Amino acid sequence: MDRFSEHFRMDEEAIRVYVAEKLKLFGNIEDIKVSEIGDGNINYVFRAEDIKSKKSVVIKQADKLLRSSGRPLDVDRNRIEAEVLKFYGEVASDYVPKIYHYDEVMCALTMEDISEYENLRHGLMKKKIYTNFAEDITTFMVNTLISTMDIVMNPWKKKEDVKKYINVELCDITEKLVFTDPYTNHFGTNIVLDESSEFVKKEIYDDEELVFEAGKLKYKFMNNPQSLLHGDLHSGSIFVTESKTKVIDPEFAFYGPIGYDLGNVVGNLFFSYIHSDIVMSDEVEKRAYLSYLETTIAEIMDKFTEKFGRAYDEKVIDPMAKNPLYKRWMIASILEDAAGMAGTEIIRRTIGDSKVKEIESIGSIEARVYMDKFLILLGKSLIKDRYKIKTGKDYVALIDKIKKLI
Amino acid sequence: MDRFSEHFRMDEEAIRVYVAEKLKLFGNIEDIKVSEIGDGNINYVFRAEDIKSKKSVVIKQADKLLRSSGRPLDVDRNRIEAEVLKFYGEVASDYVPKIYHYDEVMCALTMEDISEYENLRHGLMKKKIYTNFAEDITTFMVNTLISTMDIVMNPWKKKEDVKKYINVELCDITEKLVFTDPYTNHFGTNIVLDESSEFVKKEIYDDEELVFEAGKLKYKFMNNPQSLLHGDLHSGSIFVTESKTKVIDPEFAFYGPIGYDLGNVVGNLFFSYIHSDIVMSDEVEKRAYLSYLETTIAEIMDKFTEKFGRAYDEKVIDPMAKNPLYKRWMIASILEDAAGMAGTEIIRRTIGDSKVKEIESIGSIEARVYMDKFLILLGKSLIKDRYKIKTGKDYVALIDKIKKLI
Repeated sequence: MDRFSEHFRMDEEAIRVYVAEKLKLFGNIEDIKVSEIGDGNINYVFRAEDIKSKKSVVIKQADKLLRSSGRPLDVDRNRIEAEVLKFYGEVASDYVPKIYHYDEVMCALTMEDISEYENLRHGLMKKKIYTNFAEDITTFMVNTLISTMDIVMNPWKKKEDVKKYINVELCDITEKLVFTDPYTNHFGTNIVLDESSEFVKKEIYDDEELVFEAGKLKYKFMNNPQSLLHGDLHSGSIFVTESKTKVIDPEFAFYGPIGYDLGNVVGNLFFSYIHSDIVMSDEVEKRAYLSYLETTIAEIMDKFTEKFGRAYDEKVIDPMAKNPLYKRWMIASILEDAAGMAGTEIIRRTIGDSKVKEIESIGSIEARVYMDKFLILLGKSLIKDRYKIKTGKDYVALIDKIKKLI
Repeated sequence: MDRFSEHFRMDEEAIRVYVAEKLKLFGNIEDIKVSEIGDGNINYVFRAEDIKSKKSVVIKQADKLLRSSGRPLDVDRNRIEAEVLKFYGEVASDYVPKIYHYDEVMCALTMEDISEYENLRHGLMKKKIYTNFAEDITTFMVNTLISTMDIVMNPWKKKEDVKKYINVELCDITEKLVFTDPYTNHFGTNIVLDESSEFVKKEIYDDEELVFEAGKLKYKFMNNPQSLLHGDLHSGSIFVTESKTKVIDPEFAFYGPIGYDLGNVVGNLFFSYIHSDIVMSDEVEKRAYLSYLETTIAEIMDKFTEKFGRAYDEKVIDPMAKNPLYKRWMIASILEDAAGMAGTEIIRRTIGDSKVKEIESIGSIEARVYMDKFLILLGKSLIKDRYKIKTGKDYVALIDKIKKLI
């Protein structure tokens, strides 16, 4: 029996042995340098490099206990992540790291090292510009999402897939932290500044219509296996260089409504927007950067719609869906979901317990309160008016509309 | 190794041995009388009686080949049926036969003999009256359907359940024969009288809006695991005495939209209606029977709505669903689905290949053509106007409205 025939949580030294003896990668074990690079709150991520050849890989291991809280979490998420990344490799290979090995026993995924890419959230906080991002991420989403719809793929295979990707525990996290607590504080996880608490009460908890609309979105999240989603496609799951884009971490993947992925991508860009608006001091630079973000937001929506429509014509096999009215309805309903899900993402990241860095990094209480107001009103508008927010222009127009309300 | 350690299709003699030796039921094997009683096109059903004690059971066996066509069909449907009947026994025990034994190897289900009950479709064709039927079937539906919604049950368990009840092959049958072919004749399975074919072309195949709306209902059937459905709740799956009701044959069970079960129940009663209207000659008796059917149709809708609403208040645990707006929306959307699904059931049973006896038994071409017209226009109206067909009164009002159109 080898050392890796039973699951244990690996440290840097164990990873070194794992890479050399189990994976048989690189040359001499003495030349392998391992460093932990992960900072998520769920898993452990290492980079292993052969210092002679300069070749490197990344190894992501799932532990049986949640990294942040120590509570147990099913390692099945690791199998799901491995399978989804393999699937992404088939339909969107340019936009994901290559998978070299998946170890069911150790719950360890060995993949391409994409260290030259930067976390999109961090890059945007440094006010970098990624000109291909809207193009890339919409191609990624359209390719991955349309090909797992049952109007496109064999419905038999799709149902087997739905079964394979039932993701009980990670969906539960989303259902609670995205779709329940922000509107009810039912589990008591919200974290709200004292200075914002009255605003949150009035604008969220006491807004019965908002809670109702968010409830409908929760129901849709739970009861609409439309397509195989990434399930956590915020700016921290996306890595970029100036010209390239990679998506990682699909461990929340499950069959759900397409709008959830699209809404996460576009929703998260508003954090960059308000962050830039607050922290950038040079007015010319600020105007240029905000304009870049507006363009990116608009392009994501419009390119998605256009590419999805084109792929629809090419790929749909269900005779009942080959109908122009049906196509229009399907796209409209995805866009409606996307606006709503962008809204729920914005609200939960603002008042829930998984705040984004764009918010947490702001020290001034006054600025934080302004941010809270902007994001809450924006999220509300996206949720309540989702029926009419469809084009890139609609999204950009929201920004000024909300600013005037504060 | 016993004789029943490997699956084979049992005949009456094998069932006799099975009952005595495998199930160890009854006394002497010589006293066991077996007769095949099934007439479905999927499985084999036997009644075994101990002629001394007069005790009896029913045994339903699934074969690996479809009874009607000989093509292979996954016997997993038998496991699903056994599990669903057990579940029904927990939440609606008065309305299902008791399950005595489930044999995974032989795919055989041994259950209570309900020979004193009559197939509802046959009973209604004999113009019998079942005064408790609306009461019973609505209690059955509300109890079974609400308790498997994820706003009521633990969402973790619900997701495991969704997985357990993925029913690939039988859903495929419904998707093709209920939701595709009637509108497109894509698979060429429709069977239409020459005298009706022009009407069918004009009113169905060429009605783009109808095909679109039916497509939306198909999509809902495939992409909305709202609740554990019976999945085939037509009048032939319901057995009745003057005062009691039993539901059988849930092998099409899967997680789908509640309206599909409700729509099947109510939709099938319109076949009885038009059949009675055509075959009954005594005007007084006819008027009384049609009035009984109208009352039953109306009561099913209204009692379902009322009981579902009451159960909702008692059972819902999701904090986001404890909201009067949400409750109203949920019930309205179920009723909308029910009307649409009643419409698709009526149309597929009229022009598809699984016609109901109420239609097939009519010899006169003239009467058949009238029936076709009535049922097609009724089905269309239920599908297209489903947003506004909600109460029992709405359903009953449709009858006169449609008659005036012919």
